[in-house]
Amino acid sequence: MLLGRVTGTVVASRKEPLMEGMTLLLIRQIDVDDSDQDGYVVAVDSVGAGVGEVVLYASGSSARQTALTKDRPCDAVIMAIVDTWEVDGDVVYSK
Amino acid sequence: MLLGRVTGTVVASRKEPLMEGMTLLLIRQIDVDDSDQDGYVVAVDSVGAGVGEVVLYASGSSARQTALTKDRPCDAVIMAIVDTWEVDGDVVYSK
Amino acid sequence: MLLGRVTGTVVASRKEPLMEGMTLLLIRQIDVDDSDQDGYVVAVDSVGAGVGEVVLYASGSSARQTALTKDRPCDAVIMAIVDTWEVDGDVVYSK
Amino acid sequence: MLLGRVTGTVVASRKEPLMEGMTLLLIRQIDVDDSDQDGYVVAVDSVGAGVGEVVLYASGSSARQTALTKDRPCDAVIMAIVDTWEVDGDVVYSK
Amino acid sequence: MLLGRVTGTVVASRKEPLMEGMTLLLIRQIDVDDSDQDGYVVAVDSVGAGVGEVVLYASGSSARQTALTKDRPCDAVIMAIVDTWEVDGDVVYSK
Repeated sequence: MLLGRVTGTVVASRKEPLMEGMTLLLIRQIDVDDSDQDGYVVAVDSVGAGVGEVVLYASGSSARQTALTKDRPCDAVIMAIVDTWEVDGDVVYSK
Repeated sequence: MLLGRVTGTVVASRKEPLMEGMTLLLIRQIDVDDSDQDGYVVAVDSVGAGVGEVVLYASGSSARQTALTKDRPCDAVIMAIVDTWEVDGDVVYSK
Repeated sequence: MLLGRVTGTVVASRKEPLMEGMTLLLIRQIDVDDSDQDGYVVAVDSVGAGVGEVVLYASGSSARQTALTKDRPCDAVIMAIVDTWEVDGDVVYSK
Repeated sequence: MLLGRVTGTVVASRKEPLMEGMTLLLIRQIDVDDSDQDGYVVAVDSVGAGVGEVVLYASGSSARQTALTKDRPCDAVIMAIVDTWEVDGDVVYSK
Repeated sequence: MLLGRVTGTVVASRKEPLMEGMTLLLIRQIDVDDSDQDGYVVAVDSVGAGVGEVVLYASGSSARQTALTKDRPCDAVIMAIVDTWEVDGDVVYSK
């Protein structure tokens, strides 16, 4: 899984029927020091994340292992909202 | 999923029989500010996208989760045409 | 899928029994302007491609969705020989 | 698999139910000379690794092949704690 | 598949039970001109490769398609020892 910050939403009215009702969030990848990285991903939200929150997302076939995304053409899913993380014993991020 | 702009078409008459009838589109990857990126991908179109449109595409095994691409040697599929997206509350792109 | 040019062959007499009889081709990745890129991949040929031809190849589990490669330890397969592609209405490559 | 050093922990109380009880560790990727690399990953721990230890982790669908992670939305798992490795006959790392 | 040179071994006594008995080799990625690249991978050996040999390895779920690695948390497998390869008609490498 990777860390990311929810930075926005994507709206797509014309889509694969299996993607109907999925919330699509724009995730900015962040580094372990909580700084923004260049990469981004559009992920389905399975946990009710909001803009500004730091999340964990899973990619590839693992993104289809939630009740919401099973058997859907989805390759990225937010599967956790991060409360805190530590590096070498120091708290780097706290919600 | 990633954002991309449909920039062209690929024609291949000699191909794996399972790929017969698939429309192959050339997708230029774009960044969240709507600028072109270096990467590209050739994706099967499952939603009737046209050249110039901004789309979302899924990669890997997730690209085989549409009715059209199931069990086919396809690793990228366009599964939505993007209407709009927002970053930090500002609309970055609107169709 | 990605575009590549067949640039050579790989011979490996000692291999996983499931790979016996597979033709292994060396593919140079190319960009949408038909220029060579740095990356390469060794792919199984499912369509009878020859050195110099431009092909499409699929990666990952999608590379095992041809009759030839099913259930084999193969993560890249040539699934089409490209005739032509267009970018923004201009033909970039024609066989 | 890739080599990494466990550098921290991630806490996420709100998450996909299937991820309940999983220990999430922050892994700094390391090179074969034991130096830190830029990349990181958050992986589920299936072997009881501790901060500071060098581990091997598997990514993608292979990360779901442990008893702990089966059918869960997890795309990285620590599946071994490294004792030692050699390059060209020289021991580079020893626990 | 990608080309690599076996450069060493990794020993891990504490590991996922499903990885018991697997030989873990350190593979330096090489380019098509036989030069070393920056990347590496730790792969399970299914063909009896030795240090110094050039091999082909498969990644992702394809790495679990050998009798040895089936259903194990392994994302890279050596599935062939390379005898020779040619680029544009010239032999680049011969064992």
